[in-house]
Amino acid sequence: MGGKITEIDTVSLDEANKALVIIDQTKLPGQIQMLSLTKAKEIWDAIYLLQVRGAPAIGVAAAIGMYVLASRYEVDDYDAFYAAFCRDKEYLDSSRPTAVNLSWALKRMEGVVTAHANEDIPAIVDALHQEAMVIRDEDIAVCHKIGEYGMELLKPGDGVLTHCNAGKLATVRFGTATAPIYLAEENDYHLHVFCDETRPLLQGARLTAFELQESGVDTTLICDNMSAMVMKNGWVNAVFVGCDRVAANGDTANKIGTSVVAAVAKQYNVPVYICAPTSTIDMATATGDDIVIEERKPEEIAEMWYEKRMAPENVKIFNPAFDVTDHELIAGIVTEYGVARTPYTESLKAIMDNKQKRV
Amino acid sequence: MGGKITEIDTVSLDEANKALVIIDQTKLPGQIQMLSLTKAKEIWDAIYLLQVRGAPAIGVAAAIGMYVLASRYEVDDYDAFYAAFCRDKEYLDSSRPTAVNLSWALKRMEGVVTAHANEDIPAIVDALHQEAMVIRDEDIAVCHKIGEYGMELLKPGDGVLTHCNAGKLATVRFGTATAPIYLAEENDYHLHVFCDETRPLLQGARLTAFELQESGVDTTLICDNMSAMVMKNGWVNAVFVGCDRVAANGDTANKIGTSVVAAVAKQYNVPVYICAPTSTIDMATATGDDIVIEERKPEEIAEMWYEKRMAPENVKIFNPAFDVTDHELIAGIVTEYGVARTPYTESLKAIMDNKQKRV
Repeated sequence: MGGKITEIDTVSLDEANKALVIIDQTKLPGQIQMLSLTKAKEIWDAIYLLQVRGAPAIGVAAAIGMYVLASRYEVDDYDAFYAAFCRDKEYLDSSRPTAVNLSWALKRMEGVVTAHANEDIPAIVDALHQEAMVIRDEDIAVCHKIGEYGMELLKPGDGVLTHCNAGKLATVRFGTATAPIYLAEENDYHLHVFCDETRPLLQGARLTAFELQESGVDTTLICDNMSAMVMKNGWVNAVFVGCDRVAANGDTANKIGTSVVAAVAKQYNVPVYICAPTSTIDMATATGDDIVIEERKPEEIAEMWYEKRMAPENVKIFNPAFDVTDHELIAGIVTEYGVARTPYTESLKAIMDNKQKRV
Repeated sequence: MGGKITEIDTVSLDEANKALVIIDQTKLPGQIQMLSLTKAKEIWDAIYLLQVRGAPAIGVAAAIGMYVLASRYEVDDYDAFYAAFCRDKEYLDSSRPTAVNLSWALKRMEGVVTAHANEDIPAIVDALHQEAMVIRDEDIAVCHKIGEYGMELLKPGDGVLTHCNAGKLATVRFGTATAPIYLAEENDYHLHVFCDETRPLLQGARLTAFELQESGVDTTLICDNMSAMVMKNGWVNAVFVGCDRVAANGDTANKIGTSVVAAVAKQYNVPVYICAPTSTIDMATATGDDIVIEERKPEEIAEMWYEKRMAPENVKIFNPAFDVTDHELIAGIVTEYGVARTPYTESLKAIMDNKQKRV
C-alpha cells in the first residue's frame, strides 16, 4: 500500500467495509505506509503507539474500528452482541485515556447499539456503519468550514506561521490550523508557510512540514527559536495554530511553545488565530488558570538526540506538553460556525448557544 | 587527565610552560577530557573542530598556542624566528576566519615579536609568554568585572534564564552571561537558573546546563519554546545572555533565539541583560540593521536527530545562526566598566570613551 498523502484520508474504512485503514504516522516523513486493521489488539496498538494521533483522528479511528470489530462478531442474540461490544469498547478506551475524542466517539457508537436493541444483529451493524461514517463526515465538514472562515483572514501571497501539527494528519482530511492553508492553496493564494519544528517531539518537522510540502504548499522549516527573526523580516502575515482546549474567556491551551509564538507575534504586530472546532471549546472552564498542564518525561528533551544523551546526567528538566496562551494575545478563534473575536466571554458564548439551537 | 570542570580553566598553559591545555568541548557533557597540544596542526584542529569554542576562549587559546609553538623553534637568528612565527600565525588564523578574537590575539602576539626584534630569541620567547598570560588574565578580569556588575542586578533566591552558552566554557574561567551567576552562587544567592537548550546545536543543553550543574548551581534545562511558560509562572526575575556584536544604538546580535526570549520577557515584564565585554561593542556599526547574519547548513536542523532524517526530503529550511535583539527590548548592557542603560547611543559612547582614556 502507499501513495501520495494528499489523496489519502488519514483514517478511513476500506472499500470492502471490512478494515480500518490508517496512515502509519510513526513512519513519517520517511515512508508513507498504510495499515489495514481488523483486530481489537491491532487498533489498540495503533492508538497507543501513535500510529494514529491527533484527537479528531483518534475519535474517527475508534468509531470506524468499533464498527469493523462489531461486524465480525459471530453471535446471534443481542445480549451476546452487546457484551462483546462493551468488552471491545472498554479495551479501545484504555489505549489513551486522556484523549477526549476517543471516549466521546466510543460512547456515541455504544448509543447506537442500545438505541437499536430491538432490531436484529445485521441491522445494528448497519447502524454502526452509518454512525461511523457520520462521525467521519462531521470531522471533514467541521475542518472544511474552519478552512473557509480561516481563508477569509488571508490574502494571496501571505506568509503564515504554524506551530506543531494541527494538520490533515491530526484529522481525517483537512486539519484545523492547516485547513485555511489548504483551501487558500486550492484558490491559488500561493502562501508561504513557516513550520516551527516543535520541540521536543518534532511534530512540526516530521508531520506538518511533510504534509504541506506533499500538498505543494511553499513550506519552510524553522527551529522554534527562529520565529522572531522571520516575523521581524516581515515574512509572516498571520499565525494559525490548533488547540487542545479553549476556556470560556478565550485563554487557549495548545502545544508547548504556542504562547512563545503569540508573545513574539505581538511584538511584531502579527495576528494569532486559534483554529478550534467547537468540540474543543470548554465553557465549563472559566480561564486558562483552570487548565491543568501535563508534564512529560525528561528523556524526551535529554535523550532523543544522535542516539546519545545530549544533556548532563541528573540535570533537572522541565517538560510541559502544553502551555496556555492569554486571550489578549489572540486576534480570533476560528470555529466551524465563524470567527470569535474579543471579548471572547461574549463571542464564544454566542457561538456555543447558537450551536445548541442547531442540534 | 580530567577532573571537576569547576576547578579547571577552559584554556591554560601547562605547569612546565610547554603545552596549551584545553577542555575538549566536543566530548561534553558525557566526558571531561583534557587535551595537551604542542603542535600547530593540533592547535588548528582544536579550533576548527570546536574542541575549543567561544570567541574569548579561542583568542586566549591562540595566544598561548602561539607562545608554545614559538618556544620550540630551533633557530638562532631573528629573521628565521619571525618567518617561522608568521607561518604558524597565518596557519592558526585560517582555522576559523570569522572569529574576531582569533586574529586579534594573533596580531597582538605578532606585535610583541616585532617590538622585541633587537633582543635575542630567548628574550622574545619570554615576552611572548608574558603577553599570552596578560591576554589570559585580561579575559579573567573582564569576566569577573561583568560578574560583579551583573550580580548587583540580582537578589538572593532569584530565577535567571539564559540562552546558548556564554559561559565559563566560552572564556577562560567565569563566562560572560554566567559570571553574575557564579559570583552570586559564591555569595550564597541560591539562584534558580533555566537553560534554553538552544536549537539547533544545543549549546544550552550540552554546555551551559553542564557547567552550571557541575558548579552546584540549581539548574533546569528547558526547550527554547518553554520560556513563556516559566516566565508566566513567575519563576524568572532576569534574563542574562551573551552577545556576538553590540551596535552603537544597543541593538545586539547574539545566538538565534535571543530576540524570541526578549519578546517573551517583555510580555511578562522580565528584564533582559546583555553581558558584553567592551571588545564586542562595535561603535562603527550604527544599528542592528547593519549586522549581517550568517546562515548555516540546513542539515543542522533536518538531520541531527536519532541518526535518521527527521524532516521531509528537500523541504526548505531557514537556519540563521544569530538574530538581532532590538535595543528597546534590552534593560541593560553589562560591561567590565559598568552597566549601560537606555539611551544606549549615549551610555555606550560614554563607556567606550572612558575605556580609551584608561588605555
